Amino acid sequence: MARPVSIFGLGDMGAALASTFLKHCYKTTVWNRTSSKVKPLVDNGASLATSVAQGAEASELIIICLLDNNAVQQTLEQAQSSWSGRTIVNLTNGTPSHARETAKWAIARGARYIHGGIMAVPPMIGNPGAFLLYSGASEAFEPMKIDLDILGESKYVGSDVGLASLQDLALLSGMYGLFTGYTHAMALVRSENIKGAVFFPLLHTWLTAMAGYLSVVTQQVDSGDYAATGSNLEMQLAGLNNIVELSKEQGVNADLIRPFKALVERHVAAGKGAEDTSALVELAMKPVKE
Amino acid sequence: MARPVSIFGLGDMGAALASTFLKHCYKTTVWNRTSSKVKPLVDNGASLATSVAQGAEASELIIICLLDNNAVQQTLEQAQSSWSGRTIVNLTNGTPSHARETAKWAIARGARYIHGGIMAVPPMIGNPGAFLLYSGASEAFEPMKIDLDILGESKYVGSDVGLASLQDLALLSGMYGLFTGYTHAMALVRSENIKGAVFFPLLHTWLTAMAGYLSVVTQQVDSGDYAATGSNLEMQLAGLNNIVELSKEQGVNADLIRPFKALVERHVAAGKGAEDTSALVELAMKPVKE
Repeated sequence: MARPVSIFGLGDMGAALASTFLKHCYKTTVWNRTSSKVKPLVDNGASLATSVAQGAEASELIIICLLDNNAVQQTLEQAQSSWSGRTIVNLTNGTPSHARETAKWAIARGARYIHGGIMAVPPMIGNPGAFLLYSGASEAFEPMKIDLDILGESKYVGSDVGLASLQDLALLSGMYGLFTGYTHAMALVRSENIKGAVFFPLLHTWLTAMAGYLSVVTQQVDSGDYAATGSNLEMQLAGLNNIVELSKEQGVNADLIRPFKALVERHVAAGKGAEDTSALVELAMKPVKE
Repeated sequence: MARPVSIFGLGDMGAALASTFLKHCYKTTVWNRTSSKVKPLVDNGASLATSVAQGAEASELIIICLLDNNAVQQTLEQAQSSWSGRTIVNLTNGTPSHARETAKWAIARGARYIHGGIMAVPPMIGNPGAFLLYSGASEAFEPMKIDLDILGESKYVGSDVGLASLQDLALLSGMYGLFTGYTHAMALVRSENIKGAVFFPLLHTWLTAMAGYLSVVTQQVDSGDYAATGSNLEMQLAGLNNIVELSKEQGVNADLIRPFKALVERHVAAGKGAEDTSALVELAMKPVKE
């Protein structure tokens, strides 16, 4: 018999998690701060918990997916004594400090604690391509893995409970960089009335090729040998200056590229213009004092 | 018999172009401001032009690949009267204005003019995956296409000579965003001593998936219907705040994410937090006055 599971939080993501467990015939209990999101899930067979304590008591496996860490704290504290013997899997986006703090709170109340990061948008949950990062004690993770695998590919990244959040936020940083470049690129071509449908195939081909090229850059980062194999930073600065100039000519926000350009400028000014993009990772780890 | 070709500029990229033509048995003439880069090419069969005029007279097809537009102007002006009947293909990275200005100069001297953008690093020239954008009069481009195809896949983007530079710089903007996110992500994981070799496969999988997701975003951009299908901007802002907080905790440069975060904040503050990333392209086209 499938294990009962309780889901706390029914935003778009929490609702997608609950639906996926229901589809796999789990005895699914749901709780949300407001009841507006509950109905479609109850119609599909979910049980409604009318309090946090009731939700905690219904299942050994408790999945939390709320807006932020404050919401998690406020929710957990509504049921101080209901957590013993539970495995709490907190999928709320937060920092490693948040994860460590909540783990301490939960373990002090007799629960096991795993923190996770969802690398998918809600419609991808339970479908190919979705993956989730998990960290925390492996004794807590292993018995639940078979259930968590239903949501997407489970990637366990270590026993330090903060590691999933660290890598989750690092991946999101990578994505927001990608989105930054996408937004800038699209704004430039749209400023000449070129449709996304015309330009995007070119952009997608290019970004996919460059994402592959970053494996070479990664070898350089790990080795600390930053000698340019592609275009060196001095050459790249010429291109970056042209992008800023074009952005101004087209009336497009040039700020999107400035922080990267600033890193390149610092490195070229330090006489290291013959190095490659790989050199900038170390530089980003030593921010200029604000 | 293969057409003679002259290459002006022997930086890493110019040298790669010349080598590729030599490999395909073209009668290749090279010119560079300094003669230091010339020897390996001459050893491989290239002819050395000792003046710009000599290089221009040697071939009907002239390829220019210099550091920037100033270098192009200074080079062309050394041989005012040698360009009649030539097809100049300028692959120097620059803005559409630079391209239009140089085209005007060249056409006034009886030359045909094509501007191009090289979407590859030097080692990729002549190999699969390299592509080049071209714009300018199709009567100028078409007869040279067979020769230009040797360098990489030729993509002709229109008769307005500025269009190749516009799309080249837009693609580079996309790449620099990708590099921004990569640098930030790697700095975060390296701050916990996680090796690139461990983290990069995860990052590559994630970025490739998200680059694919941008096709959905592009449909929204074109339609102007920005209703969130993935995570809405309000949810994303919670993640962006966590990234900034983590960056500070880890001593990593949080500036890399600030311009994107600023766009999201402006849009959420305008009451449009339920929209998707797609809404930001329009916003980036209306920069806040500096």
